[in-house]
This record gives sequence, C-alpha cells and structure tokens, in this order.
Amino acid sequence: MPTLREAPADAQIVSHQLMLRAGLIRQEAAGIYAWLPLGLKVLKKIEQVVREEMNRAGAVEILMPTLQLADLWRESGRYDDYGEEMLRIKDRHDRDLLYGPTAEEVVTDIFRGYVKSYKDLPKNLYNIQWKFRDERRPRFGVMRGREFLMKDAYSFDIDEAGARRSYNRMFLAYLNVYARLGLKAIPVKADPGPIGGDMSHEFMILADTGESQVFAHRDLVEMGAPGPNIDWFGDLEPEVSRRTSLYAASDEMHDEARFAAMPEEKRMTARGIEVGHIFYFGEKYSKPMKALVTGPDGKDTPVQMGSYGVGVSRLVGAIIEASHDDSGIIWPDSVAPFGAAVLNLRAGDAGCDEVCEEAYKSLTDAGLDPLYDHRADRPGAKFAATDLVGIPWQVVVGPKGVAEGVVELKRRATGERQTLPLAAALKVIAG
Amino acid sequence: MPTLREAPADAQIVSHQLMLRAGLIRQEAAGIYAWLPLGLKVLKKIEQVVREEMNRAGAVEILMPTLQLADLWRESGRYDDYGEEMLRIKDRHDRDLLYGPTAEEVVTDIFRGYVKSYKDLPKNLYNIQWKFRDERRPRFGVMRGREFLMKDAYSFDIDEAGARRSYNRMFLAYLNVYARLGLKAIPVKADPGPIGGDMSHEFMILADTGESQVFAHRDLVEMGAPGPNIDWFGDLEPEVSRRTSLYAASDEMHDEARFAAMPEEKRMTARGIEVGHIFYFGEKYSKPMKALVTGPDGKDTPVQMGSYGVGVSRLVGAIIEASHDDSGIIWPDSVAPFGAAVLNLRAGDAGCDEVCEEAYKSLTDAGLDPLYDHRADRPGAKFAATDLVGIPWQVVVGPKGVAEGVVELKRRATGERQTLPLAAALKVIAG
Repeated sequence: MPTLREAPADAQIVSHQLMLRAGLIRQEAAGIYAWLPLGLKVLKKIEQVVREEMNRAGAVEILMPTLQLADLWRESGRYDDYGEEMLRIKDRHDRDLLYGPTAEEVVTDIFRGYVKSYKDLPKNLYNIQWKFRDERRPRFGVMRGREFLMKDAYSFDIDEAGARRSYNRMFLAYLNVYARLGLKAIPVKADPGPIGGDMSHEFMILADTGESQVFAHRDLVEMGAPGPNIDWFGDLEPEVSRRTSLYAASDEMHDEARFAAMPEEKRMTARGIEVGHIFYFGEKYSKPMKALVTGPDGKDTPVQMGSYGVGVSRLVGAIIEASHDDSGIIWPDSVAPFGAAVLNLRAGDAGCDEVCEEAYKSLTDAGLDPLYDHRADRPGAKFAATDLVGIPWQVVVGPKGVAEGVVELKRRATGERQTLPLAAALKVIAG
Repeated sequence: MPTLREAPADAQIVSHQLMLRAGLIRQEAAGIYAWLPLGLKVLKKIEQVVREEMNRAGAVEILMPTLQLADLWRESGRYDDYGEEMLRIKDRHDRDLLYGPTAEEVVTDIFRGYVKSYKDLPKNLYNIQWKFRDERRPRFGVMRGREFLMKDAYSFDIDEAGARRSYNRMFLAYLNVYARLGLKAIPVKADPGPIGGDMSHEFMILADTGESQVFAHRDLVEMGAPGPNIDWFGDLEPEVSRRTSLYAASDEMHDEARFAAMPEEKRMTARGIEVGHIFYFGEKYSKPMKALVTGPDGKDTPVQMGSYGVGVSRLVGAIIEASHDDSGIIWPDSVAPFGAAVLNLRAGDAGCDEVCEEAYKSLTDAGLDPLYDHRADRPGAKFAATDLVGIPWQVVVGPKGVAEGVVELKRRATGERQTLPLAAALKVIAG
C-alpha cells in the first residue's frame, strides 16, 4: 500500500493524481499501467458488478484472445480503415496480427461457427478482456490509457424487433451497473452512424471534472435504475421509453431548441464522463462475414447485431472523478478496496491490540473485507493515508478509548465521527 | 454449449480433441484460442484455486500489463538474447514494445519503485495475466499455445536464507494447488542454471500421454500435499526436505545410478506433464536493474529474487490428459464447469419438469452450480453430451422414474448408477 504525498507533475486530472498517490497504479509505459494491490481490488470489484448484471440480463460470458488475425478484419473491411489507433503486429512467420481494440470480428466468427438457426436466438455473448488502442497522446491515467480493460457484449437476433429487445435489456442492465457503482448515469442519444435509427446511446456519469457538457431533463436524472427484479425477457419497452422520451444529449448531439422548449426548472446541464456505449448496427459485420441464420421461413439471412461496451478500467478513474474531496478518494461501498479500516493507534499495547483484533475478526465475518493498519506510524499519518485511499469506514482504536470501552467510528464520505462501544460501531457499519 | 461428434483432424492429442469436441475453446489463429462458456468456467475455477493458495501462502496479487517496454528488457540484458519467441512490437511512435512472455523485469521495476528497506521484506508479488510466446510450431491446443494464461509470482528477500523460506512457501503452496485440482503432482529437480544450488523444481503431473518420462521414489508420489493448515510463516524446511530428499527427476536431470540404487519396489516411472516451475535466481535482475534494499547494517544490496510459474490455461489441458475416458472428459469436482447436470428426458411433461426444477433449485442452493438440460434431444444424445463435457454428477429424470418417485443418479468418474428418490440422490451428491 505505497502512498505518496505529492502526485507526479505530469498527472493533470484529479483521478490520475489520486490513483498514483494512493498507490492504485504504476505507469509502465505511456498509457500502460500496472495495477497495484489496492487498484486491482477495485478493478476486480467493478468487473464483478458488471459480470453479475450482464448475467442477470441473460448475456453469456466467453473470453476472446487479446491478439486477433488481421485476415478477420480484412473480411469485415475494417483492417485498412482503422487507422493508427490499431496496434499492428507481425509474428515470427510474418503473419499479420493485431491487438484487439474491439472484438466485433472475432465474436462474429465465433457465432458463425456454431449458430445456424433462429431457434438458437436471441444470443448475447460478452467478455471482459484487455484491449489496446494506440492513442496518439495517451493521458489522464486510466481514463485514456492505451491498454485498457473493457466489457464488450454482442447481441445476435433474427430481426430488428429482436435486436430492439436485446438492446433494451442492455440499456436497463447498464443503468443497474452504474447504480450499483454509486454513480448517477444518464443515457444520452448518440450518433447511430450510417444505419440511422434510435438505437445508440452513450452513458454519461456526472462529475464536475467531466470532459463533456450534458443537457438533460431533470426527471431523467432523478429516475435512476430499474433494479434487478424486472422481467428481463418480458416487455421492457415501457421501462426504456419512459427514459428515452425525456431529453438528454451531450455536446455533439445537443439540440438547443428542443432543450430550451422544456420548462426551465426541468433543464439540467452538467459536466459528464462517458462510461458506456451501446448501439445497434444490424448487418454491418454479419453480411460481409457471412454470419447467416436460417429464419422460420427456411431462408438464410445475416444475423442482426448490436454491441455494448463498458470501460471497466476507465470506470476506476471515472468513479474517483465523481467521488473525491481534498483529502483523497471516497469509494462507494460496493467497490472500495477494503470495506473498513481498523486503525490501531498504539500497536503493541495489549488493550489496543485486543480490541483491534476483535474488530478485524467481526468485520471479516460480516463480509466487510477490512484492512488492519497496525504500523508504528503516528496517528496523523494513518488518518491521512486511510482518507487518501478512501476506505468507507474507519474504526479508530486508541488507549484512551480502550480504557473507556469505546472506539471512534468515522464515515469517510461525510466525515462524521462517533465515539461508541465497538459492538455499537459494528452495528452502525452493518447498517 | 456447442459439442462436436468428431474432432478436427489437426488436433493430435486427446485434451485438444476433447476441448474442441466439448466446445471449451475455438481456435482463432495458430496457438490463439477463444474460450467458450464451458471452457471459461473451468479456466476461472482453476484461476481461483491458484489465487486462494497464493494468498494463503502470503503472496499479494497485482496485475501487470500484457505489453511491456523493450527498454526494461534492455536494462536486464535480455532483450537481445530472448530470440524469436518474443513478440516484438512497434507502436505508432516507433517505440519498441513487446508482449510479455514473462514479467521479471516489470515486477523488478515495480519493486524498486516502492521498497527500499529490509524491514519491508519478505515480499511476494504475483499476477494472473495473459502472456505470449511466439512458438515456432504451436500445437497441442492450450498445452502449447502462443497466447496463454500464467500465474507468475516473484519473491523478494534480503538474503539467501530468506529466499529459501519464500521458496519453501511456494513449493508447498504448489502441492496444495495441484491436490485441490485433483492431480497427482511430483516436484522434480530442475536445472538451476548458472546460479547452481538446489532451489529449482518443476512440478510434473502423471498422465499416460505425458511428454516427459518421470522417475521418482514411490513414497514421494504417495506423500501428497501438506494441506492448508501448516504454519506458513513458521519453519517449513522439514516439510520440504522430507520431499526433496526423495529421488525425483525427469529425463533431462535423471541419474540412473541413483535411481537404480533404490529398492526396486520404491522405483516408480511414469509419463508426466510439466505444470509448474519454481526457481531461485538471486540477483540476476535486481543487480543490473538496481533493485537495492538497505540491510540491517545500513548498506544497500541487490534484493534476492525467485520466480514461481503455473500455466493456468495449460492446466485445463493437463487435467484432461490426466482425467478422461473414451466417452470424454472427467472433471474433478473442484473445477468442473458445472457440478451436476439435471437431464430432463421428457421436457414438457409436467411431472418431469417439476422434479427437474426441484433438483435444479436444490443443487443451486447447495452451491453445486448445476446445468439444466431441457432440450428436446433424444436421451442418448443428452447422455453422450453430458459424458463428453465431463459433468461429475448426472441426475436423470424420466417419466417412468417420476411415476415411481425415483431418479437415476450417475457418477461420471466411475460410471456407477443408482436409482433412488431425489432427496436421497441430493444427499449422495452432497457427500
């Protein structure tokens, strides 16, 4: 848990500064990071939230390789078009490979290898895998890295109506993901590209330091996520359309006239960070790559596809942008590297050690995944480090309190402190 | 769960054939595979066993990037030496990168960035990450792939005595990993390279189709793993040396005279597959890369390192080589993609559906992670597919049994079948 007093000078945004100071990551090359123990714990927790919500919505996890055959991208026609962001590689036999920046071609190849009939649809295959985009100027830490972890899902349907049902499942599943991560996320209309239509959304989370301007109807912001208990294979159109019917756009798609036509008290503008993108692209890959399925009429037709991306490593930075203060990171409970910290202000003192060990054991049993800090540091340094790394609850154990039968409990998010017996503190933490 | 009747002709070994037939993997390029749902489940379960045993033995998980800076490898002197197995890459700014075949340089760089004093030792940092080795002739499926998942751990100590303690922890942790995976693993002496000494072992699992010949004292084979409850930071030398004192070698290091000197009934020869390698290499990287720590005497000295590798994706194939029959894979319970399968022989029949749903629910509640096969296939096809993918328990529900209040329970490993009430079957499965 290596913490730094100062952030390196080249870290320009607060999440990058705090991730370096809190010892979450270490830069190994431009836009390429190693994940240190605390950072990896957060990354894994976010990954698990995303996985659970994908599974709940009926998507099936696979794992595609990081390196892909250039020939697959020649089939789709994207190999020559992709530009310098694609990391092109030659192996020892001079065959063209590339480090996948995305996986439409690979997943289409997998699909066409096994699925031949509309009876096996709908299908949604996703994976959580490292990708590489050779950004010209990587910066902002994991917010715009070159090697990054992405969850990418791909839906397959026999027709556009089916594709819309698949799209709706992902639309609502994404809202559930962000809600579990403690984020306010707004789906904004995104450019559908040449295919047109209304099935393209970006998800923006609100943070003062966001890169984009977001314009939205206030009711949408307050509506929140549908929760896990909706009927995922029932009719989701009402749940989706009561959200998409409300105005929401970022800079590029903003329509000032429509926005200005809303009552003033309903107009919300804020800064936002893009943390997800879902869209329908029909036959764009299935047609050139001949991923055909036989329909009820016995005819083969290209499968209708959509793709759904979440930047998992980017979310680590985005959550920090949305949730920090001058002392450091404020993790939501769901992804905090440790759910609570036990700070022993006099390690070696029999009374303090005993109370700390009891606290640690109880918190472990309660599934809080606690951190026990029994280093010989002075109290001020311990408080600062625990605030910096953003542990949601701090149980502070000192000799004076132990003599009186109490500990101090601090909530990181609010700064609120209470002095109370250990058992009572554990109850507060358990909620 | 796409299964195939025949394996592709180019799959030469049984694990490769079965992994393709059972739909665990799909080849995307030479030596590069996508992991399909069942294969990924097995891979993740093996990964989790490895992770738990590493954590138990005091190692700390980090995650290093797949791409590394060539300059780091120039510091250690390995960049020019490594040969064609290293996949060398140029990015858009013409900087030299490489896809890590291993991570000694990166972990040494991380270590030297944060650890400066012997007081912070011992340390053992590990990660489970995709690696790439550009094999001239990739083959045997995941047994000799190019992109492969490896757990690599690296220990850091102030002196050789400390390094030996770190080595001993990994030696015993590895035995625990293999035991949990249902494998008989034998640590054989490996070439220590220029550093000499006795701290270099490979772990061989016994399988008739193994690539190497293994010669070992029979007592070692029967000794097994130490189990989780040893004192990991106590004196492990007796546990290790009662194993290393018994003869064990593979072809390259075999000493026929020593082997022949053992009583004949103690001599065991068998085929083996290498599934792990641990070794001590002292200052090989820390000296050129200036990873120095201050000792108790106030002097800076290069840290003493060892490395510890397990091929996680390779283990999927190795387990199949060690555990299969003519009908398919026989997964150990610990890593089976599903712990049990519920086979509904007449889906749509109210009685069969009800019993199956009850079985599925009970097995889920018991943590068995069951599969429910309610496809309209004929019974023979269901049995064959379930045997092929190796599910450890099969609960077979048909109309005749339902009328009599019984199901058929089959154990995949032995082929043993029992006819008994569902509640009794669930008890047998629960052990």
